[in-house]
Amino acid sequence: MLESLKLEVLKANQALPEYGLVTFTWGNVSGYDREQELMVIKPSGVDYPDLTADDMVVVNGSGDVVEGKLKPSSDTPTHLYLYQTFPDIGGVVHTHSSWATSWSQAGMDLPALGTTHADYFYGDVPCTREMTQTEIEQEYEWETGRVIGETFHQRKLSPAAVPGVLVHSHAPFTWGSSPEKALYHAVVLEETAKMAAQTHMLRPSPPSISSHLLDKHYLRKHGKNAYYGQTAKEDSQ
Amino acid sequence: MLESLKLEVLKANQALPEYGLVTFTWGNVSGYDREQELMVIKPSGVDYPDLTADDMVVVNGSGDVVEGKLKPSSDTPTHLYLYQTFPDIGGVVHTHSSWATSWSQAGMDLPALGTTHADYFYGDVPCTREMTQTEIEQEYEWETGRVIGETFHQRKLSPAAVPGVLVHSHAPFTWGSSPEKALYHAVVLEETAKMAAQTHMLRPSPPSISSHLLDKHYLRKHGKNAYYGQTAKEDSQ
Amino acid sequence: MLESLKLEVLKANQALPEYGLVTFTWGNVSGYDREQELMVIKPSGVDYPDLTADDMVVVNGSGDVVEGKLKPSSDTPTHLYLYQTFPDIGGVVHTHSSWATSWSQAGMDLPALGTTHADYFYGDVPCTREMTQTEIEQEYEWETGRVIGETFHQRKLSPAAVPGVLVHSHAPFTWGSSPEKALYHAVVLEETAKMAAQTHMLRPSPPSISSHLLDKHYLRKHGKNAYYGQTAKEDSQ
Amino acid sequence: MLESLKLEVLKANQALPEYGLVTFTWGNVSGYDREQELMVIKPSGVDYPDLTADDMVVVNGSGDVVEGKLKPSSDTPTHLYLYQTFPDIGGVVHTHSSWATSWSQAGMDLPALGTTHADYFYGDVPCTREMTQTEIEQEYEWETGRVIGETFHQRKLSPAAVPGVLVHSHAPFTWGSSPEKALYHAVVLEETAKMAAQTHMLRPSPPSISSHLLDKHYLRKHGKNAYYGQTAKEDSQ
Repeated sequence: MLESLKLEVLKANQALPEYGLVTFTWGNVSGYDREQELMVIKPSGVDYPDLTADDMVVVNGSGDVVEGKLKPSSDTPTHLYLYQTFPDIGGVVHTHSSWATSWSQAGMDLPALGTTHADYFYGDVPCTREMTQTEIEQEYEWETGRVIGETFHQRKLSPAAVPGVLVHSHAPFTWGSSPEKALYHAVVLEETAKMAAQTHMLRPSPPSISSHLLDKHYLRKHGKNAYYGQTAKEDSQ
Repeated sequence: MLESLKLEVLKANQALPEYGLVTFTWGNVSGYDREQELMVIKPSGVDYPDLTADDMVVVNGSGDVVEGKLKPSSDTPTHLYLYQTFPDIGGVVHTHSSWATSWSQAGMDLPALGTTHADYFYGDVPCTREMTQTEIEQEYEWETGRVIGETFHQRKLSPAAVPGVLVHSHAPFTWGSSPEKALYHAVVLEETAKMAAQTHMLRPSPPSISSHLLDKHYLRKHGKNAYYGQTAKEDSQ
Repeated sequence: MLESLKLEVLKANQALPEYGLVTFTWGNVSGYDREQELMVIKPSGVDYPDLTADDMVVVNGSGDVVEGKLKPSSDTPTHLYLYQTFPDIGGVVHTHSSWATSWSQAGMDLPALGTTHADYFYGDVPCTREMTQTEIEQEYEWETGRVIGETFHQRKLSPAAVPGVLVHSHAPFTWGSSPEKALYHAVVLEETAKMAAQTHMLRPSPPSISSHLLDKHYLRKHGKNAYYGQTAKEDSQ
Repeated sequence: MLESLKLEVLKANQALPEYGLVTFTWGNVSGYDREQELMVIKPSGVDYPDLTADDMVVVNGSGDVVEGKLKPSSDTPTHLYLYQTFPDIGGVVHTHSSWATSWSQAGMDLPALGTTHADYFYGDVPCTREMTQTEIEQEYEWETGRVIGETFHQRKLSPAAVPGVLVHSHAPFTWGSSPEKALYHAVVLEETAKMAAQTHMLRPSPPSISSHLLDKHYLRKHGKNAYYGQTAKEDSQ
């Protein structure tokens, strides 16, 4: 069942430590089969080198395990919420990568300061508001997804144009059309979070990238006029 | 004598450089056999790759060597004090890991700023007061343990809930139910110390994690209602 | 056609990830044959480990592909502009290396703070002005080169004495007499950018290097009185 | 001639990149034979992996090459000055390691902030004054040594108790009883420079280590009452 998606999810999970995005088991990747409305996700608390494709857990839209012997990631409801709210995404990554998490802990949006950022994120990466006592004490992981959705809704952001978020006092989530693309965005987010922090260290109120340069770089990689890469359409990671 | 514990202590010592926690010989791990009231600890000043299980030194409650050809770590009395004061711990780790040591040198508590911290430390990790001239000149290593105990006593902290400390102008100690768990906490402490410092760089007075979120994250990994991991009870590292 | 130059360009491109200067495909190296007025450059969006010498793209002075099955780097016009404006250079490197990019994003010149800098850059490494809407919307990559040239012209800088630049809100370019030398300067620029930022962190307005020390270090490695290295003349990387 | 010392000097030079202390050829190690008054030093500008014991250059007290086919390091006169001024040292290391160089560029002493520092440096590591135009333009490398000597003389510092220095706007030198010990101090200096900078970031005017704790840590590793390591006397690296 969903063997090919399981393999994609496995590989993306195993890449997390290779890219230096996780310590111990602090991260998880999922993939979504939109036709069958089934999600494949890492099991909870298992080390990456020990994982096999068969360990990946299949859950349905209510979060019930449909296949797999292990418990799914405790963040399962957050992933599910994102798939059900952002209709075009096929992969979600959650990590506690060091620089992105530092912006989350500061409760600050990650500002678009340069072309590296603009190549992948069409504007600032938002930080959510703090969650309320009720949200935390009740369906916490589901509510985490809801606060992300609220942030994108209120700020009128497109999840395709800004494929990531910082959850306040917590850590980042990224997404994409596949687990691999979501992973790609997790790496980019960490790198841009590092460079923005270093820029901030050099100059506390650094200049934002101009809207013209933001447009130029984002649109030379994405959309119908993209011209970066060998086949610009598919290269719009 | 205590062959299995020696092996655990050996492995945890050898893991210190693998996790990037030590330069040269700047760290040591011990384990405690609570029935026999015997401690197994790294020998002083020996390089990690050269260590064998037989090199581990067994000392009794007075710090006398009971077995082993080498001198025990000069920090032996600090480790002993911790085992005798915190009745539930079975392993202690001391390092000079870079970020945790920087907080120690600043003389500042490591604040709980996010869920990464809350997953393992149920509140700020305290920094002790400075030690007095008398404490330093007399039984220095024993007094180091005493100041740690005093800090936990005065602040009404539980060593199970906050499994680590920053010693003022010095460096961190962590502990756990076994040498392996103490090592796990040493890695977490360094990672959270790094992220808290980066957060502090972005925003000098960052928001603390809310008490609700602190509760949520700590308690989903620890205690009778834990639900993280495959067998939540044992996973509460 | 230009087989030897293709090999040089290939090797320099492959060295980018080895020196930690790039994430994914975020950098490119070119080389120039000044007699034939042909440039060899990395293809756009291809991973470094997958590259072969045959993948290198040959373009003429107008940027048209003369040989090669792949599309050249989208930064091709910037490279071309530099070769046509700086008559003595034979290699150009563009990266988004973390520290140099942070200075670019801050919109600040990289100041000459010590001998490490002075050994290779004879004064501050300039940051360009912001590009205008028109420059960005029309021939963006060509205009990027033009703004670099303008910066060197207006500040009366020699591209031989200062073999690199920071493009505002973007990232660094470096150059040299060959692709290998341009790569060397890219590594030096990143290292000096890191040390200058750390110095800035310790002391917000750090002392500049004295003009005497700048002269001494630059000139003991470059020019007719150089005495560093085994054959001082050729060692002036 | 001096085969054993050449091997020691070779190994210490090769260890520089392994410890992450150098980029390219930016560092050199020498050793001194005090009976014959001969120094063995790395050749100038040669990559570490290419070095053999035979490449090491032997120079006499005037800096003339006595044996070896290659030119000695351009820093040769600085090394010589140190051996002739500090009568108990047998090895000298010069690097441009990132954190120590940042303190040099800031023109600031490296303050003793904790026990890691106190274990090896008995007080602050001084930064020299800026060198004068005359010193720089005439016998620059020899004068660099002279300014180091002046700094230790004026501040009444013992080169045995403080085995390193930061040269203003330049970089660190360390020394010891052998090339290996000098290398050890170069690693310690870089690590303590990093931690002091991080401490400074957390708290701009951090507390100094108390004189009692400085004494305790330095003296438990050095001198007749040392008790760290297996054979405390020889362990006083």
